[in-house]
Amino acid sequence: MLKVFVCGGSGYAGCELLRILSTHPEVIVAGVSSEKSAGKYVTDLFPGLYKYRSLAYEHLQKEEILKKADLFFLALPHAESQDAVDFFYRQGKKVIDLSADYRLRDAEVYEDWYRVPHRFRKTLGKAVYGLPEVYRKKIRTSRLIANPGCYPTGAILGLLPALKKKVIDVSPIIIDSKSGTSGAGRKADVALSFCEVNEGFKAYAIGSHRHTPEIEQELSAACGIPVTVNFTPHLLPVDRGILTTIYAPAVKKYTTEGIIKVYEEFYGNEPFVRVLESGRYPNIKNVRGTNYCEIGIRMNERTNTLIIVTAIDNLVKGASGQAVHNMNIMMGFEEKTGLDAMPLIP
Amino acid sequence: MLKVFVCGGSGYAGCELLRILSTHPEVIVAGVSSEKSAGKYVTDLFPGLYKYRSLAYEHLQKEEILKKADLFFLALPHAESQDAVDFFYRQGKKVIDLSADYRLRDAEVYEDWYRVPHRFRKTLGKAVYGLPEVYRKKIRTSRLIANPGCYPTGAILGLLPALKKKVIDVSPIIIDSKSGTSGAGRKADVALSFCEVNEGFKAYAIGSHRHTPEIEQELSAACGIPVTVNFTPHLLPVDRGILTTIYAPAVKKYTTEGIIKVYEEFYGNEPFVRVLESGRYPNIKNVRGTNYCEIGIRMNERTNTLIIVTAIDNLVKGASGQAVHNMNIMMGFEEKTGLDAMPLIP
Amino acid sequence: MLKVFVCGGSGYAGCELLRILSTHPEVIVAGVSSEKSAGKYVTDLFPGLYKYRSLAYEHLQKEEILKKADLFFLALPHAESQDAVDFFYRQGKKVIDLSADYRLRDAEVYEDWYRVPHRFRKTLGKAVYGLPEVYRKKIRTSRLIANPGCYPTGAILGLLPALKKKVIDVSPIIIDSKSGTSGAGRKADVALSFCEVNEGFKAYAIGSHRHTPEIEQELSAACGIPVTVNFTPHLLPVDRGILTTIYAPAVKKYTTEGIIKVYEEFYGNEPFVRVLESGRYPNIKNVRGTNYCEIGIRMNERTNTLIIVTAIDNLVKGASGQAVHNMNIMMGFEEKTGLDAMPLIP
Amino acid sequence: MLKVFVCGGSGYAGCELLRILSTHPEVIVAGVSSEKSAGKYVTDLFPGLYKYRSLAYEHLQKEEILKKADLFFLALPHAESQDAVDFFYRQGKKVIDLSADYRLRDAEVYEDWYRVPHRFRKTLGKAVYGLPEVYRKKIRTSRLIANPGCYPTGAILGLLPALKKKVIDVSPIIIDSKSGTSGAGRKADVALSFCEVNEGFKAYAIGSHRHTPEIEQELSAACGIPVTVNFTPHLLPVDRGILTTIYAPAVKKYTTEGIIKVYEEFYGNEPFVRVLESGRYPNIKNVRGTNYCEIGIRMNERTNTLIIVTAIDNLVKGASGQAVHNMNIMMGFEEKTGLDAMPLIP
Repeated sequence: MLKVFVCGGSGYAGCELLRILSTHPEVIVAGVSSEKSAGKYVTDLFPGLYKYRSLAYEHLQKEEILKKADLFFLALPHAESQDAVDFFYRQGKKVIDLSADYRLRDAEVYEDWYRVPHRFRKTLGKAVYGLPEVYRKKIRTSRLIANPGCYPTGAILGLLPALKKKVIDVSPIIIDSKSGTSGAGRKADVALSFCEVNEGFKAYAIGSHRHTPEIEQELSAACGIPVTVNFTPHLLPVDRGILTTIYAPAVKKYTTEGIIKVYEEFYGNEPFVRVLESGRYPNIKNVRGTNYCEIGIRMNERTNTLIIVTAIDNLVKGASGQAVHNMNIMMGFEEKTGLDAMPLIP
Repeated sequence: MLKVFVCGGSGYAGCELLRILSTHPEVIVAGVSSEKSAGKYVTDLFPGLYKYRSLAYEHLQKEEILKKADLFFLALPHAESQDAVDFFYRQGKKVIDLSADYRLRDAEVYEDWYRVPHRFRKTLGKAVYGLPEVYRKKIRTSRLIANPGCYPTGAILGLLPALKKKVIDVSPIIIDSKSGTSGAGRKADVALSFCEVNEGFKAYAIGSHRHTPEIEQELSAACGIPVTVNFTPHLLPVDRGILTTIYAPAVKKYTTEGIIKVYEEFYGNEPFVRVLESGRYPNIKNVRGTNYCEIGIRMNERTNTLIIVTAIDNLVKGASGQAVHNMNIMMGFEEKTGLDAMPLIP
Repeated sequence: MLKVFVCGGSGYAGCELLRILSTHPEVIVAGVSSEKSAGKYVTDLFPGLYKYRSLAYEHLQKEEILKKADLFFLALPHAESQDAVDFFYRQGKKVIDLSADYRLRDAEVYEDWYRVPHRFRKTLGKAVYGLPEVYRKKIRTSRLIANPGCYPTGAILGLLPALKKKVIDVSPIIIDSKSGTSGAGRKADVALSFCEVNEGFKAYAIGSHRHTPEIEQELSAACGIPVTVNFTPHLLPVDRGILTTIYAPAVKKYTTEGIIKVYEEFYGNEPFVRVLESGRYPNIKNVRGTNYCEIGIRMNERTNTLIIVTAIDNLVKGASGQAVHNMNIMMGFEEKTGLDAMPLIP
Repeated sequence: MLKVFVCGGSGYAGCELLRILSTHPEVIVAGVSSEKSAGKYVTDLFPGLYKYRSLAYEHLQKEEILKKADLFFLALPHAESQDAVDFFYRQGKKVIDLSADYRLRDAEVYEDWYRVPHRFRKTLGKAVYGLPEVYRKKIRTSRLIANPGCYPTGAILGLLPALKKKVIDVSPIIIDSKSGTSGAGRKADVALSFCEVNEGFKAYAIGSHRHTPEIEQELSAACGIPVTVNFTPHLLPVDRGILTTIYAPAVKKYTTEGIIKVYEEFYGNEPFVRVLESGRYPNIKNVRGTNYCEIGIRMNERTNTLIIVTAIDNLVKGASGQAVHNMNIMMGFEEKTGLDAMPLIP
């Protein structure tokens, strides 16, 4: 049995890790940390997570917890993760970091968008971007995974086949995303209170969201030339889910069916990608609580524009499920282990 | 492997059965019926249920499907279930009926509240009310289970210890229930449309809901004298969950802690009942997607009234999860098999 | 034109006052205070309140604002209101206090439930409980109104006719209330965040909510003997609205129609009470944004229990609308002035 | 007093008309029709619309209702409106049609997208597209107004200044819209039921929605050359509101502030358009129940793309409020009469 430790287990990504790992037959959760909730039981915060009723949060004392586990999941706030990742990695442990700290390969770009210095550039050089559909081979042999952001996961999976198969132009691509409120984290904030979010809908951080360089990095890598994107996130009055609507001009005449074929071939054996047939489009409700990415395609022949819609659960495929998928690949477990849940209906 | 057939699989209870059974290691779903959707695949209706993408709905042709399975789940509308239950039962099959048709032991009471004749009184006499916390022994050896209603499950579990331990008076007990909208079924109805339900809340069928005689039957059986109840259901603008708030006068002075102890002892080993400590109360969100019943207790010493709050997921513990629990008991499987999910947070 | 000042205008009750007053033809809003938001414009917090785009929050400097207005609305937190009410009242101003500080006539009861001393007992003696359906005459000549709490408004209006006409027993009455989330105020609190409230439902403060003594005070006054109640509030995942379901044993045999007649006669000319015909029940969505109280009646003849359901908008009839109604009565304005809005559908 | 008649008053647009007209000091609602609900009172369907408790629905018998009113609002389904519009118009009445039947000036385009013949081309030639910000002068003297669609209103208002001031390229513009569920109308449909919509989000009719030619017609007219758009609607789990996010390449370098200035000047005196300052973006909750259109601007200098976000209430500015605005202009009433409501908060 693999012993894992969850650093930062009082937020939504952390407790989603606990939930998913509880069904994993090869794993033991050896401990969980939280600074604010140290001393409390997991079920004090989340009464439904009954299997953890005797697991208490502890402080993140790196030296002490080092020997408790072989693999460390880090679900800490951005910037706070840098140091812990470096420590566990240098001590020979496997590390899966859910923060943004090791996702951007260019430390300058990181510092520019996150406004904090990156103090561990050598370790940064070791990190593999944990999108299995692209980096499966590298993940297999890596000890340090930078788990992708939620928006980038939906955007990149939607664009990858079109870009790699040169179906679309790379000149500014439009990525219009809508995320459930859990994407903002678990915190006390009037702007996230029920009465402000419920029955509302808005765009935010237009053109300035920190996931932008992450998306551009991976799309550029995919097609070998620099790609820029217009990325607009919106806040949905639902708990979970990201729907991303993508627009790009096609390089020549295509049909919807033709593009769907390209996508189906590209993702042929991927365990967690579902390309929908013509005329069907994704709904976040169809992937809620699951590690799936649903992709819908529409080639608008009137305007010669390709429109791609993707749906993921921001906390599963967009965070903790993908982290477990990465663990499965790193450890040689069957990839779907612990990740084959179907959504609640309704 | 046990072969099961789901009669009526296009409603919420039916597709929840499919979802739960998909994780059950001892069971094969041999088929599923739906009159309206016959010929369509399960994933045509519910794209997220990807494991059933090659399972198509068929018509409920009893003779033909008889040999396909050993156990039949029936998730048909009330009255429509009578005949099918009788047929499969008399053919020697195991039957778990999720409708109300075999719950009321007295056919007259059934006919009075449901306004249809009961045409199979002999078979009715064979049915066991499938509340495992009460009838586990009988369920073990029965071939015909009348799976409890959603409201009765929450109400009876809340009252059982207090009644059996004679903590409260039986003179009209107040049962104030609030149910998520999936309890009304999956149907085209303006009154169930998003814009009518959302941001609304109302009581309905006050004093006349058909679950009333079912609750009274079981409470009366529990304490050996006739019990009457005031049962008021309400419609919550959420997908799932029933919260039931119960009021009854205590027969003598008690403390909250004292009553909690009575409940903890009563439910000691029950796998799906969770009695909360003093000062904590249930939330439907803590049991969503799970087979658990959470019970919170407050003894109001000022008014000498015992207040009990229970929370269940109406589609799991209130329907399909309890049906699978009954199957596990009938078949001698470990009781929690397929039923140990924890809730999504959030 | 009457000049009014709103003390505490950055919470939901305060900004609802601003919204309602903006349509009132006899009133000028002379100013608004907020400690946290002093210096900001009303539209910085609430962009939709465009008519107040040039009104800025100021600090509650009592001496300075004294001469700005003739009538002061106070929407301050409990305990913080005591002093300001006393000040403006003693300076000869009209005061309508939306806090609980002057609602309980017995200062000891206040201190017992609110755990703070009441320092202005003489002024307390001058306050009139601002429920127009009961105290209209006194309100007309009073200068100090204690505006009723949201839960008490729905509960008292539901019980008043039954108690005064001696239709029910007074021994513990059951009051089961469900409130929208705005009732908890506008604040940064994880427990009020969207992801915690949405798709959830729970009871809280069972038997210990501070509105209990307020309800008991008014019911006891109505029928001349001490009344005790079991009051259970619940948190609804909607913005606005309180639905209250009330249970009490009838003293003799009645029909639903008979009781409805009693209620209709009792409330005959009341401008804001609507007694529904037999078989119809209130829905919070039908009163949202309005000053109406809808009342539905069901006499359960099987159990001899009277069940009363009331619906109000907690921010209008349960707070700011009722405050404006009180102002209209105090000032001799037509009672419905500014208060005749119908609900948005949907 | 102007007598008006509402044809089709049992849907959401119709009952919103009733609600708004009830506050209009110059208007009497002389009658309302509904085929399905003929004989019922308005309050039988919408208990909250208490001012209409003695108004009953009647059948749309054109000859009979002709003399009842001077101005007819038609909120009938598409295609069903053609005939009634033509009749009332030819009889010399004023007509405001909320359907799509008279919006497209080219009957061929109408027939192509709506798949029904247009049988009244002569009358079609008389219709004025009722967007006051563009056609105010023509509306003033017209007797037949084609009230704009909900999506087109938000899209056109967002693009008008940029197109007319030649700030952007017209080559395919991206219009990504998200609408509350009331936009789909009031009907019995599983796909619109609470449990299907709630906690979900999806795109639909990508590239094929019937509002596309309406948007293109008006944008082309605005800039004098043919404009094509990619229009993607999405279904939001809220009652009301449309947020539209628009992307177009800028023709040269601009700043956000520079574009905001262009918009402010363009809409200078418009009573129902609100251009937000730099860094602020619209939220549908800020315009709910109001006739306002909020516009937010962001010039993404990295990608040289102009991003415009607009928010309207689909039932007010996107339907019935705009219809009343058109009536006010036609009749010479002050434009904001009956339309100055501010949103409920929350």
